[in-house]
Amino acid sequence: MSTIFTKIIYGEIPSYKIAENDHFIAFLDAMPLVKGHTLVVPKKEVDLIFDLESEEYKNLWGFAQEVAKKIKVAVPCVRVGVAVVGLEVPHAHIHLIPLNKMEDMNFRNERLKLSDEEYTEIQNSIINS
Amino acid sequence: MSTIFTKIIYGEIPSYKIAENDHFIAFLDAMPLVKGHTLVVPKKEVDLIFDLESEEYKNLWGFAQEVAKKIKVAVPCVRVGVAVVGLEVPHAHIHLIPLNKMEDMNFRNERLKLSDEEYTEIQNSIINS
Repeated sequence: MSTIFTKIIYGEIPSYKIAENDHFIAFLDAMPLVKGHTLVVPKKEVDLIFDLESEEYKNLWGFAQEVAKKIKVAVPCVRVGVAVVGLEVPHAHIHLIPLNKMEDMNFRNERLKLSDEEYTEIQNSIINS
Repeated sequence: MSTIFTKIIYGEIPSYKIAENDHFIAFLDAMPLVKGHTLVVPKKEVDLIFDLESEEYKNLWGFAQEVAKKIKVAVPCVRVGVAVVGLEVPHAHIHLIPLNKMEDMNFRNERLKLSDEEYTEIQNSIINS
């Protein structure tokens, strides 16, 4: 069975896409901790990020670096934090989270409910930064 | 002024070292969230991880992958989580955290107090895994 991320990759589930190449994709988290919270996902459906082959793994982080730099420009924040947890979706993914304080990265926090207009505005500001 | 991590790199502050090469070092977190919580640090004193030059940045993640695989073998856990926060020490560092549940990666949790013997046992089990 495909993971929810594979369905996003194939366009079966809509997403607010930030960047994509042949191997990786980045899109806004549908349940963001803060505005600009983005997921970076390898198209290869692997559960544990550290199980990716070394070169693909490093390129995934390289792709995440490019996305993070754009987030940092587009979203007001002290820095862009990183988290890989993966206890909920068995498809490796990197959280990029604009941080202003430690508490912004607490996954127990209530998630934001954003409107389509708000998502689109954030998406465009990151893409165009 | 040197960061606390630079002092660890130069041996001015002791640490339970897990791995080291010319560019990177890994050692047990002195205030661990869980047993086996490890920090991976570039020797270059840079604040934001995404400001590292692309090749060094990717190699840092490659080094972290090797360490994470050893932690996964040595420490009972469902998976090894990753966090980059950096609001407290202005020297880029990757947290590798053995996870059994989401709550294990909450930085607001009380930190463990381990004895020297416990640290040494964890250190050796990771190094030798």
